[in-house]
Amino acid sequence: MTKRSLTDLLAQMTLDEKIAQLVQLTPNFLNDNDANLTGPLASMGLNPEAVWNVGSVLSAVGAKETIALQEQYMKNNRLGIPLILMADIIHGYRTIFPVSLGLASSWDMELAERSAAIAAKESSVAGIHVTFAPMADLVRDPRWGRVMESTGEDPYLNSEFARAFVRGFQGSDLTGDTDRMAACVKHFAAYGAAEGGRDYNTVNMSERQLRESYLPAYKAALEEGCELVMTSFNVVDGIPATGNRKLMRDLLREEWGFDGVLISDWGAVQEMIPHGAAEDNAEAAHKAIAAGVDMEMMSSCYAQSLKELVQSGQVDEEWINESVLRVLQLKDKLGLFDNPFRGADEQREKEIILCDEHRQAAREIAAKSCVLLKNENVLPLRAEQKIALIGPFAQSGDVLGPWSIWGSQDEAVQLFAGLAGKTDVSRIAVAEGCGITSGTEAQAQQAILAAQDADVIVLALGEASEMSGEAGSRSDIRLPEVQLQLAYRLQQLGKPVVAVLFNGRPLDLHGIIDVADAVLEAWYPGTEGGNAIADVLYGSVNPAGRLTMSFPYSVGQVPVYYNSYNTGRPLTPANADQRYVSKYLDIPNAPLFPFGFGLSYTEFAYGDLAISAAEMGETDKLTVSVQVTNAGKTAGEEVVQLYVRDLAGEVVRPLKELKGYRKLKLEPGESADVQFTLTEEQLRYYHSDLTFASDAGLFEVHVGPNSRDTAVQTFRLVK
Amino acid sequence: MTKRSLTDLLAQMTLDEKIAQLVQLTPNFLNDNDANLTGPLASMGLNPEAVWNVGSVLSAVGAKETIALQEQYMKNNRLGIPLILMADIIHGYRTIFPVSLGLASSWDMELAERSAAIAAKESSVAGIHVTFAPMADLVRDPRWGRVMESTGEDPYLNSEFARAFVRGFQGSDLTGDTDRMAACVKHFAAYGAAEGGRDYNTVNMSERQLRESYLPAYKAALEEGCELVMTSFNVVDGIPATGNRKLMRDLLREEWGFDGVLISDWGAVQEMIPHGAAEDNAEAAHKAIAAGVDMEMMSSCYAQSLKELVQSGQVDEEWINESVLRVLQLKDKLGLFDNPFRGADEQREKEIILCDEHRQAAREIAAKSCVLLKNENVLPLRAEQKIALIGPFAQSGDVLGPWSIWGSQDEAVQLFAGLAGKTDVSRIAVAEGCGITSGTEAQAQQAILAAQDADVIVLALGEASEMSGEAGSRSDIRLPEVQLQLAYRLQQLGKPVVAVLFNGRPLDLHGIIDVADAVLEAWYPGTEGGNAIADVLYGSVNPAGRLTMSFPYSVGQVPVYYNSYNTGRPLTPANADQRYVSKYLDIPNAPLFPFGFGLSYTEFAYGDLAISAAEMGETDKLTVSVQVTNAGKTAGEEVVQLYVRDLAGEVVRPLKELKGYRKLKLEPGESADVQFTLTEEQLRYYHSDLTFASDAGLFEVHVGPNSRDTAVQTFRLVK
Repeated sequence: MTKRSLTDLLAQMTLDEKIAQLVQLTPNFLNDNDANLTGPLASMGLNPEAVWNVGSVLSAVGAKETIALQEQYMKNNRLGIPLILMADIIHGYRTIFPVSLGLASSWDMELAERSAAIAAKESSVAGIHVTFAPMADLVRDPRWGRVMESTGEDPYLNSEFARAFVRGFQGSDLTGDTDRMAACVKHFAAYGAAEGGRDYNTVNMSERQLRESYLPAYKAALEEGCELVMTSFNVVDGIPATGNRKLMRDLLREEWGFDGVLISDWGAVQEMIPHGAAEDNAEAAHKAIAAGVDMEMMSSCYAQSLKELVQSGQVDEEWINESVLRVLQLKDKLGLFDNPFRGADEQREKEIILCDEHRQAAREIAAKSCVLLKNENVLPLRAEQKIALIGPFAQSGDVLGPWSIWGSQDEAVQLFAGLAGKTDVSRIAVAEGCGITSGTEAQAQQAILAAQDADVIVLALGEASEMSGEAGSRSDIRLPEVQLQLAYRLQQLGKPVVAVLFNGRPLDLHGIIDVADAVLEAWYPGTEGGNAIADVLYGSVNPAGRLTMSFPYSVGQVPVYYNSYNTGRPLTPANADQRYVSKYLDIPNAPLFPFGFGLSYTEFAYGDLAISAAEMGETDKLTVSVQVTNAGKTAGEEVVQLYVRDLAGEVVRPLKELKGYRKLKLEPGESADVQFTLTEEQLRYYHSDLTFASDAGLFEVHVGPNSRDTAVQTFRLVK
Repeated sequence: MTKRSLTDLLAQMTLDEKIAQLVQLTPNFLNDNDANLTGPLASMGLNPEAVWNVGSVLSAVGAKETIALQEQYMKNNRLGIPLILMADIIHGYRTIFPVSLGLASSWDMELAERSAAIAAKESSVAGIHVTFAPMADLVRDPRWGRVMESTGEDPYLNSEFARAFVRGFQGSDLTGDTDRMAACVKHFAAYGAAEGGRDYNTVNMSERQLRESYLPAYKAALEEGCELVMTSFNVVDGIPATGNRKLMRDLLREEWGFDGVLISDWGAVQEMIPHGAAEDNAEAAHKAIAAGVDMEMMSSCYAQSLKELVQSGQVDEEWINESVLRVLQLKDKLGLFDNPFRGADEQREKEIILCDEHRQAAREIAAKSCVLLKNENVLPLRAEQKIALIGPFAQSGDVLGPWSIWGSQDEAVQLFAGLAGKTDVSRIAVAEGCGITSGTEAQAQQAILAAQDADVIVLALGEASEMSGEAGSRSDIRLPEVQLQLAYRLQQLGKPVVAVLFNGRPLDLHGIIDVADAVLEAWYPGTEGGNAIADVLYGSVNPAGRLTMSFPYSVGQVPVYYNSYNTGRPLTPANADQRYVSKYLDIPNAPLFPFGFGLSYTEFAYGDLAISAAEMGETDKLTVSVQVTNAGKTAGEEVVQLYVRDLAGEVVRPLKELKGYRKLKLEPGESADVQFTLTEEQLRYYHSDLTFASDAGLFEVHVGPNSRDTAVQTFRLVK
């Protein structure tokens, strides 16, 4: 439809119908049975008529169900406006990919895009039109359970991933390509900065910090065409994001020009009341619509209060009209007016979902998400070795991770099954050893017995998936004590130990890092997890994952992130024994594993770092080059990383900022000349008055295999 | 002198002389021997002539030394401008009082004032004119070592203490009363918010947050007439405080009207270079003088660069003139032009320092700073009981705490000596048990042996003083493991255990809180520590200390503070088993001991909380009243605390905000009617546009013995 005809449609709508378009409910509200009418519906202040006008339904999935739902809805909707169906498709629909923090370790945008495209395809045939992804929240606190859904601590890399996911979900023709779905970037803004890592907790930072670190990835998603934005649960400088007019109407709408649908997170409009930013539903509705929130998810402040607010003149009906028009535009863009069922197709659903191609992609992506943190001459395993596979994740289907609602553990490949694909089952002894957080002596004894004859012990340890994810905050970020105790006992056998870790956050790996000869961070690897890990352990895939979030030395070091500041009294090797420097008395300043870190089965040698000039004019392009050689005996991938440091700014600048990277595949002995181009634009930052500009002066350029081990050159920007 | 004559004096000064007035050095620079001329002086770019014009000397103390120094200086200074002597007199000069965080537990402004007055008197006879106190930094992170120097986590209480300290140091007639000294409030601003609790680390927050929580106590000190302000080491929104023009020139000078001396912290001007806010000394000097920093402590950017900056027209000489005039005004206010030696007096020094009156005050204040955290029928001790005094603090002089440079451990009363004043020495068996962080089996055995015959074990545990204080950040805030292991072993003897804790920060007290039947937080109690603790343990003083900073459940819970926000999904008893609330999976949200908490040897009963009206107009005074009764058998002191909560604001408001308190002394059976008055002014807060105003609407008023256990009433502010 043209914009004109949508406007005409809007003109035919009653105020009640308009307001209902701004409401999103779960499908059970559309079962118009008596229990619903007198129960949930009544409690939300909704009448049956409103239900057949609600703009969207949340979490209805499956071609059969969604087609039936849409059919029934269209029968009841006076103006024939189709329902839009949204759901949380975070890291796969039925074919589950690694959690985002895992997938991010691939530093591979093509894989990110492919995973999103597959998720979109499976979701689309199941009748879903919009996914609540990508999450572009920058994170620095591993206590926060939802780090698993983030791509890490770097604004640039988060931006690249946000773009890749949007491309994957939406494709290039959202209207015509019904295998794609609309994306909704979340959680706007700064949800990842919850104080103390406690989910939903207070966020506070300066606007400059917000713009420098937290906003870029959301903005990147929108530049990529992302259709929707979701508000965050937290406050932004004291005002809940969902009612934050400065953030939403001024920044998102006016400054950034976003004209898509802005939807609240689950219940977030009403949550302004417990936040203490609204006394009642009416005030909450007023603040949300004033902020420019188009659609209210799962609370009914709009449904209950907007009409009265308009009629009493407190809310301008124009605001309602604008929001409804945006909802109608989105429906139109998805082609729902022409075909309310869009891609939903029971037959294709059977063919596509969990098809071999998708499983193969999941396997490849999961393998490329693994990060090898330690390896002292034990990996890769050889098929002839006898393996003792021990630990709560040895035969666990809990490999999908949080936010994989429609994935099934029964469809997932356990680690045991994966190993069995690589070596004869007779060579694998298995024992659970202990549960996730508790165990018995009998379990431990069984594990010791199982390990007795093994050449290598493979320990499959980690957190249960509910220990991370939304509202999955932990104050203690070590492996559960019972698992460490098991590891200590097995260490006594004097056999090589390989630890494979399943978890949704950076952990304090003390204990296991000392016990194990090799440590493979497998995250929650998804449906093909067992196969993917086996591919890595047996060397079919040479691990190339690189951390996108620092692994702290201990929880007492949090927050620790690579792009931090130097301070006025930096700790250096030269002053390490002096008192008055910025350090802890009891631990190092550095994390246990830095951003960008990951090992390989081969080794990469870096030649001298060269820059094309010592001075750079405003329109110059500086070339930064280094030769990288596979100095080992195995083909492998290396992620060459480019960082910049501005040595003196109007405001202090990070010690390093990622500005580029190159993922190389090199055969043994093969070399590659890696070149990066630097321009003045990449040296800009937010000044104290929020202008985004560069300053003339000295800069360092760093290149290396991770954020710690870099070679450095300096140049001067001249203006 | 009149301002006019100071202006005339200024007019006679050369630019070199002026710039030198803005420099502060340690006294060794004024030893004009060859080694100095070619060594430190040369390295700082100073010439001997500049030395006899430097405005101030740091850390010269003692009547004899300071008189000699001033005599020599005056001989060499062309215009007869006296030197001003400054030093860090934080919690006492030679008579050491408890560290500030301990003293704050007294909730007693008269004691705070008295301690500062005594410190000023001892310092003044020793020739010191200015102290670098009070520290008014609000703190929320116990990892930060310098929490010991703060008065806690509450803006209101910090403000009250800042005022009391200023009154004590300065008195009401700084010029005439040579037993007083000028105070310097520090560290401006927000030094206490160092990220990760790592000293000198980055600080970031919104300006609204800065104004709401961090600025009030500095401002209170200035309202009380505090003569100087010290800049902080940290950045304030990306710009080092020392070069932060918006913070210093715009806010401190213009908005607040501060016209006293602004001095940098030690080396903080030059530290703008490592911060990355200046490329060299000249740029650092330029930024500091532009920000309005009058005096540079211990680095020589001003001395090296200001002249050239003025001569080249980059710095307006008016800035220099303003700063010099402020320095001259301060000297004049202290009466130094009339008497450069001011109160310095070798004879009085002998009489006053560590005199009985001062020791008695130190004993009283230390006893009133103790906080009883647990007591299960074991305290007070009785003189006839046999005591085993065990632990590294049993016979340690390390009771003065950090920042007690001129105090001496030899002059301090150890715990053993204190106990020996209460019971016959034959009843006390002593053993060290272990060191602070390590111990031997022999030590432990000796402790067990010593405890064998005892009726009660008194465990004296804690942190060595260097484990807190400046640059004393710890990532682990438990008692050192060896001390806990000692406690576990002694617990096996089945005797009552009393733990007395010596430490400079809120600790995670797990372990000791379970082992001990009573826990007394004694902080670093100062010179009379042993006597004071004995007074409390034996009941000569009924403990009445109340925490002014939350004691966290564990380091993984940091930051935890009482005046936090509700969030949109608050944890409540009713939803504690639900997932999607703001909580940790593994620990409670509440700290182990909340702000305001402390026990007594008696019990206080609270009557019903009453408010005079359910509505409050803008000019009304609401009366909040409660009857408090000593329901026990011992006279004792209670701190009745008044908190307010604004249920809905334009920005979210703290769950509770301290608005008043009353310290009562009640005999057994005695009651007091406690009344608080609330006015609209107390309900104001910083809105998103930084206006300071109240909003009409519902408020809660809470009264109770601590921030957790309060009774509540509501009222509505009507406008």
